[in-house]
Amino acid sequence: MSSSVGSRGEILDLIARRRDGWAMPGGFYAHPGVYDADMEYLFRRQWVFVGHSCQVKNPGDFFTVTIGNDPLILMRADDGQLRALYNVCRHRGTLLCWDDCGHTRRLTCPYHQWSYERDGSLASCRGMHDQVQDQQLDLLQAHLQELEGMLFVCLAESPPDFTAASELIGPVAAPQGMADAKVAKIVDYEIAANWKLVWENNRECYHCNVNHPQYIKANFDHFNQDDTTEQVQERIDQQTRRSEEKWQHQGLAASHRSTGMALFPDADQDLWYSANRTVLVEGYISESMDGQQVAPLMGDYPDPDVGTLRIRTMPNFWNHSSCDHVVSTRLLPTGPGSTQARVYWLVHPDAEEGKDYQLETLMPFWQLTSEQDWELCEFAQRGVQSNGYRPGPLSIHKEYNVDGFIRWYLQQLERGLTEDPSG
Amino acid sequence: MSSSVGSRGEILDLIARRRDGWAMPGGFYAHPGVYDADMEYLFRRQWVFVGHSCQVKNPGDFFTVTIGNDPLILMRADDGQLRALYNVCRHRGTLLCWDDCGHTRRLTCPYHQWSYERDGSLASCRGMHDQVQDQQLDLLQAHLQELEGMLFVCLAESPPDFTAASELIGPVAAPQGMADAKVAKIVDYEIAANWKLVWENNRECYHCNVNHPQYIKANFDHFNQDDTTEQVQERIDQQTRRSEEKWQHQGLAASHRSTGMALFPDADQDLWYSANRTVLVEGYISESMDGQQVAPLMGDYPDPDVGTLRIRTMPNFWNHSSCDHVVSTRLLPTGPGSTQARVYWLVHPDAEEGKDYQLETLMPFWQLTSEQDWELCEFAQRGVQSNGYRPGPLSIHKEYNVDGFIRWYLQQLERGLTEDPSG
Amino acid sequence: MSSSVGSRGEILDLIARRRDGWAMPGGFYAHPGVYDADMEYLFRRQWVFVGHSCQVKNPGDFFTVTIGNDPLILMRADDGQLRALYNVCRHRGTLLCWDDCGHTRRLTCPYHQWSYERDGSLASCRGMHDQVQDQQLDLLQAHLQELEGMLFVCLAESPPDFTAASELIGPVAAPQGMADAKVAKIVDYEIAANWKLVWENNRECYHCNVNHPQYIKANFDHFNQDDTTEQVQERIDQQTRRSEEKWQHQGLAASHRSTGMALFPDADQDLWYSANRTVLVEGYISESMDGQQVAPLMGDYPDPDVGTLRIRTMPNFWNHSSCDHVVSTRLLPTGPGSTQARVYWLVHPDAEEGKDYQLETLMPFWQLTSEQDWELCEFAQRGVQSNGYRPGPLSIHKEYNVDGFIRWYLQQLERGLTEDPSG
Repeated sequence: MSSSVGSRGEILDLIARRRDGWAMPGGFYAHPGVYDADMEYLFRRQWVFVGHSCQVKNPGDFFTVTIGNDPLILMRADDGQLRALYNVCRHRGTLLCWDDCGHTRRLTCPYHQWSYERDGSLASCRGMHDQVQDQQLDLLQAHLQELEGMLFVCLAESPPDFTAASELIGPVAAPQGMADAKVAKIVDYEIAANWKLVWENNRECYHCNVNHPQYIKANFDHFNQDDTTEQVQERIDQQTRRSEEKWQHQGLAASHRSTGMALFPDADQDLWYSANRTVLVEGYISESMDGQQVAPLMGDYPDPDVGTLRIRTMPNFWNHSSCDHVVSTRLLPTGPGSTQARVYWLVHPDAEEGKDYQLETLMPFWQLTSEQDWELCEFAQRGVQSNGYRPGPLSIHKEYNVDGFIRWYLQQLERGLTEDPSG
Repeated sequence: MSSSVGSRGEILDLIARRRDGWAMPGGFYAHPGVYDADMEYLFRRQWVFVGHSCQVKNPGDFFTVTIGNDPLILMRADDGQLRALYNVCRHRGTLLCWDDCGHTRRLTCPYHQWSYERDGSLASCRGMHDQVQDQQLDLLQAHLQELEGMLFVCLAESPPDFTAASELIGPVAAPQGMADAKVAKIVDYEIAANWKLVWENNRECYHCNVNHPQYIKANFDHFNQDDTTEQVQERIDQQTRRSEEKWQHQGLAASHRSTGMALFPDADQDLWYSANRTVLVEGYISESMDGQQVAPLMGDYPDPDVGTLRIRTMPNFWNHSSCDHVVSTRLLPTGPGSTQARVYWLVHPDAEEGKDYQLETLMPFWQLTSEQDWELCEFAQRGVQSNGYRPGPLSIHKEYNVDGFIRWYLQQLERGLTEDPSG
Repeated sequence: MSSSVGSRGEILDLIARRRDGWAMPGGFYAHPGVYDADMEYLFRRQWVFVGHSCQVKNPGDFFTVTIGNDPLILMRADDGQLRALYNVCRHRGTLLCWDDCGHTRRLTCPYHQWSYERDGSLASCRGMHDQVQDQQLDLLQAHLQELEGMLFVCLAESPPDFTAASELIGPVAAPQGMADAKVAKIVDYEIAANWKLVWENNRECYHCNVNHPQYIKANFDHFNQDDTTEQVQERIDQQTRRSEEKWQHQGLAASHRSTGMALFPDADQDLWYSANRTVLVEGYISESMDGQQVAPLMGDYPDPDVGTLRIRTMPNFWNHSSCDHVVSTRLLPTGPGSTQARVYWLVHPDAEEGKDYQLETLMPFWQLTSEQDWELCEFAQRGVQSNGYRPGPLSIHKEYNVDGFIRWYLQQLERGLTEDPSG
């Protein structure tokens, strides 16, 4: 009747109805047609974070991930290279691998035992007639990029450029040592909210004062242009000066010097990636409950006093790294009103649980912060679906990145809709 | 393929296929397009019963209700007035209030702490830039009418007339004292049936003899023109005469004098509301298991011998009130094949549970009757969805109100579909 | 956006995209529009197996079954005849009978007590006005055929021919004595896979070697043209010769003489039915775990050495019968990605559980084999839904019947889509 959004024209109308500086119309968060478009024009075209290379250190190690309807196996082959193989047999389409992760000599389909080498090439299809050998029946592959141990997949035939992202993020991330790390813990969540609401939540700290009592003790982000006192700015300046004096030669100096969040994403410059180092509050050397170190130093860090490293890539990844541990968050939409979130905790590869670190001190800071956010997103979802929802104004001081996210998202969506000849 | 009902034209065809005096085609009970139309042209245009004013006696008391996708807060403001506020923050659309009912000084959004006065006006949006103050950012409101303690909401911009309903129901309902009552119990049900099947069940007592052993002991409704013996009519006449002699000066006399149900709804006169007083069988002074009084007298009743008061309003409310308690039923569709029903038991405001009344004697009569009906509706739903369903004839003597309901419903639906320029 | 299949044109396009000798495009297994077409053009037009006549031996015995949205009662009437009655009251469409099976004198609607004779004729509609008697208000019926105790229903107005199927299957099946048997056990499964994947699984034994350790001990099917050694063929020849010498005069001789599966279905000859007798491996006289007899001889069998009888009918039935028991499998689609399977074990009517047979020895062979298959089907479903699925080649030697099934299916679908004027 009144409000279904199914066709390209209807979504373009919805895009046109969005008012600059204000939240998005409700249709963007609830309608199956928009979800389909999001999957088609964003998640199947862009670089999607899928996991960490340290999850698959040795040839034959693999983990699986499903983007939309597309199941993939991230497998390290005998040449040491990682590949993103479609987890779908070339014979009759059966899911090859039923595990979340593991180690295997070959991928053998449980149905008719077609088997594939670790690089995806067909090894055997015993029982087929001879002519079949002439067919190209290796596993399909998606594009894959590894960047300092972070793995990004692109399902499109022609993926967008990755070089610029790599050049910006690489040097900032390198000292963290993520490529040679150890997964201490993975926690999966199913959030009853559209993935864009999760990003809008992530892109501002306006909600932090009341909702994140742990987070605000360690960080300056919740101060913004409008509520940064002289004393607060002086604290930041002092911390930043100290960082620069100490680290400028090692490339570990804080690059983010003001209160508030770094600008991201940036629709004008089409920037879907970002990385920077920022200071923690005085007395905090790690994003932990009491600010103290909770695991051995990682990577090349000479001492714990390195602030925090932050990386984000659209459409589905953010990362907060302290001197002693890494926390990555991966989003995967599963429907118009549901998103799977996976949170990873990484530590030094030699760190032993129970001896060098305890999950009880490593995890709570980001576990609590994440879960506080998911709940807010779920209540946002319930409201924006209603006829009583009217998009409201975004705070210039506190929600510039929410506006930035919306502008970036609508740009991608509009581009996809207008370029697609078949859509 | 064969039977999807999506467009306005298809629903109009379905309306045209209905044969006078016969049940409705199955499409009306199962298709998502008809459900959308029902919500759009009935539940979002008409006066929908939401609850009782005695649930929110003092300023700051509230309860929440969701009509379709629209969450509302029924809140008593500082001026003593009730308001139906959309439970959706004007900032980014978050659900403001997560509770079924409660008491609050202000409505504060858990996300960014925008807060609203009890009347819905924006009290504070700290953190926003100055220009925001110029915007109209009070909570949206729905129209609200209170009628002898019964609360009706209309989501439309221009609600239909309420005066005639108020003038008819008001005087009949006033002596019951619902406006100053106490909620003894609320029970919620999820019925796996279309809301119209629930009404069709409610609008006839043809099914009572076998299915409602409790109900038929207390009432004369299950007798109809075709099976009312002289003796039965004489009993009714006698009870009615007694009622008139005793109560005509107090306005408590039975107004419904024949067997069978009062005519309702009435498509010809466009009557969506109805109220009358009718007699109970000899020896019954309350709709309770044994007919005896189960709670203190309510309202202005001078003695228990006042028959029962009955009120119904389309599209979602009916009420049976005895001298000592009130039972209200509220329907809210939640899908083509599902309806939420809430049943309320009200008693005198000073009655104390355990002393003046027991839930074990107050509730069973209507709890059993309701649950017996829901089960029948669920089996009707399963049959009418089938290709083997053919609408059958409605009994002239016993199902005239089912026919009346169908005619009234189709009239509303057709009106909505033909008037809506965008549908 | 990209891949919805809703209209007739889109399904016809999908049909045209299928390549001979290769698996089907993924759309056939996942899209609601194809599911609707499957129900409309196959399950509502063809002869659907519903159960065994021995489930309803006496007048008044019944069982219920739902094909798509259509609930039926299979009832034996007073004249001893079975009828397939719609389980839908002719009054207001309520489901008449809420049980899986039972015995009843009449069918009485729980709602308003309209009652029907066992043959479906209206017996009473007390409470209706007189003119109603003039209406034809007997229960609707579907077409029904009984063939050696197997019951087939057709929901179409004009069912396809049944005679040829009857003439082919009848003589082969008669000696088994299914019409006079006893149900030892029924097990229901919900398979998370499209019904066509279940058939494709059933139509080849390429997957047997690894997945069915029990089945391959008893049978020769998993040997195919390409892997039948001289020794294997000699074993089959020897078993077949023995069978012919012993049984040719009783009509019990094996008719299937080669390795591999009998050809079925056959799109060129439009054959949707098939029956044959085949040999078991040496030492096996029953499809049981150890090949030994697990229940008394059935039907007219003079001794246990009768190989196995196999019957299949499209779109939803297969049967494996040994000398001592019958196993029938019935498929009923419940959605694009879900199928209900019911497996029946039948034995001699006089056999007593615990004395003449034990469920622990009767059931495991087919219970294990069935459950092994359902799991494979479910993983196939998850793969074929993906964008990474490309239909692969079918083995000429081992999957000729999968190709045959696909060709048969597409033929039916295309015929339905092109003949239907309203589709």
